[in-house]
Amino acid sequence: MIIVVRSQADSDERARLIEVLGRMLGTLRPLTVTRMREREVITLDDSVLDALALDELRRQSAVEEIVQVQTPYKLVSRAFQAVDTVVTVGEGRDCEPVTIGAGTPVVMAGPCAVESREQLLTTARAVKTAGAQILRGGAFKPRTSPYQFQGLGLEGLELLAEARALTGLPVITEVMEPALVETVAQYADVLQIGARNMQNFPLLLAAGRQSRGKPVMLKRGLSSTIEEWLLAAEYIVAAGNPNVILCERGVRSFDPQTRNMLDLACVPLLHQLTHLPVIVDPSHATGRRDLVHPMSRAGIAAGAAGLILEVHPDPNVALCDGKQSITPQELHTIVQETRLMAQLMGGAFLAEQVA
Amino acid sequence: MIIVVRSQADSDERARLIEVLGRMLGTLRPLTVTRMREREVITLDDSVLDALALDELRRQSAVEEIVQVQTPYKLVSRAFQAVDTVVTVGEGRDCEPVTIGAGTPVVMAGPCAVESREQLLTTARAVKTAGAQILRGGAFKPRTSPYQFQGLGLEGLELLAEARALTGLPVITEVMEPALVETVAQYADVLQIGARNMQNFPLLLAAGRQSRGKPVMLKRGLSSTIEEWLLAAEYIVAAGNPNVILCERGVRSFDPQTRNMLDLACVPLLHQLTHLPVIVDPSHATGRRDLVHPMSRAGIAAGAAGLILEVHPDPNVALCDGKQSITPQELHTIVQETRLMAQLMGGAFLAEQVA
Amino acid sequence: MIIVVRSQADSDERARLIEVLGRMLGTLRPLTVTRMREREVITLDDSVLDALALDELRRQSAVEEIVQVQTPYKLVSRAFQAVDTVVTVGEGRDCEPVTIGAGTPVVMAGPCAVESREQLLTTARAVKTAGAQILRGGAFKPRTSPYQFQGLGLEGLELLAEARALTGLPVITEVMEPALVETVAQYADVLQIGARNMQNFPLLLAAGRQSRGKPVMLKRGLSSTIEEWLLAAEYIVAAGNPNVILCERGVRSFDPQTRNMLDLACVPLLHQLTHLPVIVDPSHATGRRDLVHPMSRAGIAAGAAGLILEVHPDPNVALCDGKQSITPQELHTIVQETRLMAQLMGGAFLAEQVA
Amino acid sequence: MIIVVRSQADSDERARLIEVLGRMLGTLRPLTVTRMREREVITLDDSVLDALALDELRRQSAVEEIVQVQTPYKLVSRAFQAVDTVVTVGEGRDCEPVTIGAGTPVVMAGPCAVESREQLLTTARAVKTAGAQILRGGAFKPRTSPYQFQGLGLEGLELLAEARALTGLPVITEVMEPALVETVAQYADVLQIGARNMQNFPLLLAAGRQSRGKPVMLKRGLSSTIEEWLLAAEYIVAAGNPNVILCERGVRSFDPQTRNMLDLACVPLLHQLTHLPVIVDPSHATGRRDLVHPMSRAGIAAGAAGLILEVHPDPNVALCDGKQSITPQELHTIVQETRLMAQLMGGAFLAEQVA
Repeated sequence: MIIVVRSQADSDERARLIEVLGRMLGTLRPLTVTRMREREVITLDDSVLDALALDELRRQSAVEEIVQVQTPYKLVSRAFQAVDTVVTVGEGRDCEPVTIGAGTPVVMAGPCAVESREQLLTTARAVKTAGAQILRGGAFKPRTSPYQFQGLGLEGLELLAEARALTGLPVITEVMEPALVETVAQYADVLQIGARNMQNFPLLLAAGRQSRGKPVMLKRGLSSTIEEWLLAAEYIVAAGNPNVILCERGVRSFDPQTRNMLDLACVPLLHQLTHLPVIVDPSHATGRRDLVHPMSRAGIAAGAAGLILEVHPDPNVALCDGKQSITPQELHTIVQETRLMAQLMGGAFLAEQVA
Repeated sequence: MIIVVRSQADSDERARLIEVLGRMLGTLRPLTVTRMREREVITLDDSVLDALALDELRRQSAVEEIVQVQTPYKLVSRAFQAVDTVVTVGEGRDCEPVTIGAGTPVVMAGPCAVESREQLLTTARAVKTAGAQILRGGAFKPRTSPYQFQGLGLEGLELLAEARALTGLPVITEVMEPALVETVAQYADVLQIGARNMQNFPLLLAAGRQSRGKPVMLKRGLSSTIEEWLLAAEYIVAAGNPNVILCERGVRSFDPQTRNMLDLACVPLLHQLTHLPVIVDPSHATGRRDLVHPMSRAGIAAGAAGLILEVHPDPNVALCDGKQSITPQELHTIVQETRLMAQLMGGAFLAEQVA
Repeated sequence: MIIVVRSQADSDERARLIEVLGRMLGTLRPLTVTRMREREVITLDDSVLDALALDELRRQSAVEEIVQVQTPYKLVSRAFQAVDTVVTVGEGRDCEPVTIGAGTPVVMAGPCAVESREQLLTTARAVKTAGAQILRGGAFKPRTSPYQFQGLGLEGLELLAEARALTGLPVITEVMEPALVETVAQYADVLQIGARNMQNFPLLLAAGRQSRGKPVMLKRGLSSTIEEWLLAAEYIVAAGNPNVILCERGVRSFDPQTRNMLDLACVPLLHQLTHLPVIVDPSHATGRRDLVHPMSRAGIAAGAAGLILEVHPDPNVALCDGKQSITPQELHTIVQETRLMAQLMGGAFLAEQVA
Repeated sequence: MIIVVRSQADSDERARLIEVLGRMLGTLRPLTVTRMREREVITLDDSVLDALALDELRRQSAVEEIVQVQTPYKLVSRAFQAVDTVVTVGEGRDCEPVTIGAGTPVVMAGPCAVESREQLLTTARAVKTAGAQILRGGAFKPRTSPYQFQGLGLEGLELLAEARALTGLPVITEVMEPALVETVAQYADVLQIGARNMQNFPLLLAAGRQSRGKPVMLKRGLSSTIEEWLLAAEYIVAAGNPNVILCERGVRSFDPQTRNMLDLACVPLLHQLTHLPVIVDPSHATGRRDLVHPMSRAGIAAGAAGLILEVHPDPNVALCDGKQSITPQELHTIVQETRLMAQLMGGAFLAEQVA
């Protein structure tokens, strides 16, 4: 249940509402108070409330409206917010702001990991030239083994900021622990939460409460259901940050031929269930350079709001994920195609020619 | 290993080659003798043969060429045949022949099951009007429960033949047991082997040896790896029928929101591994009417040679799979879009505009 | 719904009941007529029947009792038959009959495939000496590749019969196609239906209708749910053969370390859902010789009615599945342990010592 | 590669070794320096080192021995340490210390979540009476939805300490973020890292570096491979804490009948691959009260070093996971059986009776 608070309600009325809710829920069932699109909303699991309780809530002077949402996720559901969330990236920084979810697909690209100043700046320039709008690059890398390259850390963040200044591209980078959220937000334009951390709840809360309110790109967990994923997004939104981008990056499968199995059907499915934009990561999903291009096409055709791609000037020497990195040339082709497909899908393609 | 037999080799030379191979392999390791594209080929697993044996084989007068294929599947591999297999459907019947794998995607559509003369003929006409090229419809239905509708059987086959005569559309229908292969081939233009039968080896052999040589559409098994799927196709081809179409229909997953998980990355992957055409079944893959259209788009964008779609004039009363059946109107839109996308992807789209 | 027919009902009363049911269900919804434990029963999916229809059925003179079963599987459900099904194997043959599901676990053992007379008879003697009660061995082998050994076929069946005569052990062997069911039943004491054929419905029906009524061991499909598996068993039972043994052999997983993932929790779960006995196949489930012994222990501890194990006198030279075959010595240890564990679990172990 | 440092090596010799390694690996490939069983060891991924480099390393005066381990996990591998790790729990606290991995299986039991003082103390007493040796209870709860009970936090930790003082049972509880590791270690005797955090690398490092060196129980991730799990354990051990207990709690599956699929074959498999003890959690694995008892039996039969079980005095009113909680009576039965089975499996059972 989502209770929209009357904007004119004074603090006494608000306090009374919270008190009534506290009595109804007991001390162990949490509720959250959030601002969403200029409105204050209180969200809770209403499964313990009966019709009488509902009536009492409706009578509270602080209550503007009660929205009953059947799904366990509430604020991120399409049932609560019908219009698409559009996330603006890079505002107030030395770069060109980009909107995600506004119709034109966005391409984020860059190396898996920031390895050195030269590697990053070279790639950043190439990414810019190829037409991508956001630069990606890992400074803190979650690695399966402790003996693999773990990322440059703070130095990597500084290099990303330098690359932004150089190219005018906003940057996205991963954050792995709550204590570093503020630091990463100081440098990055989008915080990435990786697949392995999709249910790292303290991290989700920290990303939601962050003082800068930077957008968060939440990758789908290794074997996460759609519902679990939306509930993870709900943690961020309910904690105060409505700027969440979902990223499908494949789920674990039994076939060793690809790294993961890209679940493109989740793109139109999510479009029904949530107002959040969804982008697709064909690089991690397939783990194969030769599949990145066709799966980028397919992702856009499925309705994705964008792509995130691993690019390396020389994939064969990459310290991380070289097998799935494309060259700047391939990126250029994908960016061009993505624009054309989006134009066609949005415009003449369906409306006129098909009719 | 594939041994291409010299076309001028006489029966003695052939017999000697077979004898030598028999001695090398022992009685327990099988080899197959097949005609592929005008050539006679002998195929075997050569893991037990050493360099000496290979030399001896090369010296046989019946041997034209020895092709060593590293993958366990041989005849269906791209390594053996570089050019795409183009399957012609409906030749010599009272219908318009259709080619699959020749560049233009093909749409097959129709009801999950043939339920009655009226239902089938109405749907067939609608499918024709909507622009699809092949009519699908189940006469023998593999059903999870013995208490569900099992299909009309022979009567269903006769109705399909009538629908073909009426509309000029070739028909595809499922065959479930070896003993019925000849009967089904008498009526159908393509034999479908369903997901549950992908490793029904006697059925694969019967479909391969069939006297009419009708093309076979082989659906991917519920949790089949790409390699297992290609080996199943190899059974059919090695038994004498090179006209195999692969059909991706989703694999089993952990998420209850969709019936299966559509693995579109297999389309470009298979394009590298095999010369056989691959089509996509978004109806069974998703099990949701509202996802059929976007996943049809995505399938074509991934490079599929066609689509197979469940259509019902009134999905809500369908005896089988109504939840995933689209209306003829939706089919019309998908057919039109498919053509446009294919045109764009093949022509100006990439070559000119992107450059 | 299961309708138990009154044993004194005459053919007119029966015919009237069938007619009423036919009118209610229409021509497309099937019902089955089966004899189960001396009673004639009619089974159907009653989801289309309303309360009025039910009343009308109850008034039919041929109706003794109507059992409403909520699950989609009916005859195999514990709700219909509370007592365990005990399957007797090898009756009327030149061997020692064995009961499965009667409390004492049964060990079936033998080679993956019958390779030669010597290999089979040597193994059979060793299996007998080790204390196993049923001999397994494949004559028709479902192989992933057409270039692998496909089994000795009929010759293999004859060798199995010879091994039975020699050792007094009943034999179990796989049947892969409906047309061979009668032939295999002529030689075998239990028909095995393999994982790949779990939803080969014509094969299930043929095994159910078989003239000799030989028991059927139905392996779980590669990624089969418990419900699909029980519905496959329902096909056999509803077709007239109540002697079905379920065999858990692992399901497909994402971890390459074992061949499949053994789902032992299905053993006690099935014990609640069905009256059919369940045995465990640790050889195929793990694909590793070194895990067969501990997983045999665990299977018995989970409550399995028996084990089926691959044994080879010299696993390293086996033509099929050598990696997972144990030696006769290991078999001996497992057989002895199995007996002890069963004694302890049934008797003093729980009842006295634990109390 | 693991380099065992000579215990008499002085700081110069050590520094020289580190310097040589730094030169060989470059700045981006990490190595770890750890004390394991009284020895100082340096561990690294040696895939970039050639034979010459190896020779140079061997000549370093600080090098006692070089152990080459083929698997990506090194310190936790059986190849490096042949003897079982025995973890002692509760030393130096007001409780009875318990050893895990020393032969006798250990039972940990308690509520899913600490809900109140009364609930915890009542359950703790019942757990003690039933014979379990360690008390479990969640103070910080990772919950799929932000609107579910999130645990009592610090208050929960204090209640656990009170329960330990009352019963003499060491306590295990979950820690979810690096910043709370020291706090939780102040109260708990074992830190639990949950399935969702198995690859939360900052958390693994914090648990490894913790000042109190409290043992860590690392649960298997939702769809984690065995190798990924051992690499996660390697993070903890390489960071300085050798006291790691692995806990199998089921992996994600496609069958809705159980919450997860319990992979018992991993128990004997891990016994070969690692020296760390493995315990089994049948409560989370099955999610069904009625399967906890048989799967506890099966887990012990598979060779588990212990069990962790959810117990609630009144499962029907539990705030969390009531469906899978057993009663204290059931716990009593399981504890008794576990002891008996362990005795039998270790002693007379195999050695004498079977021979």
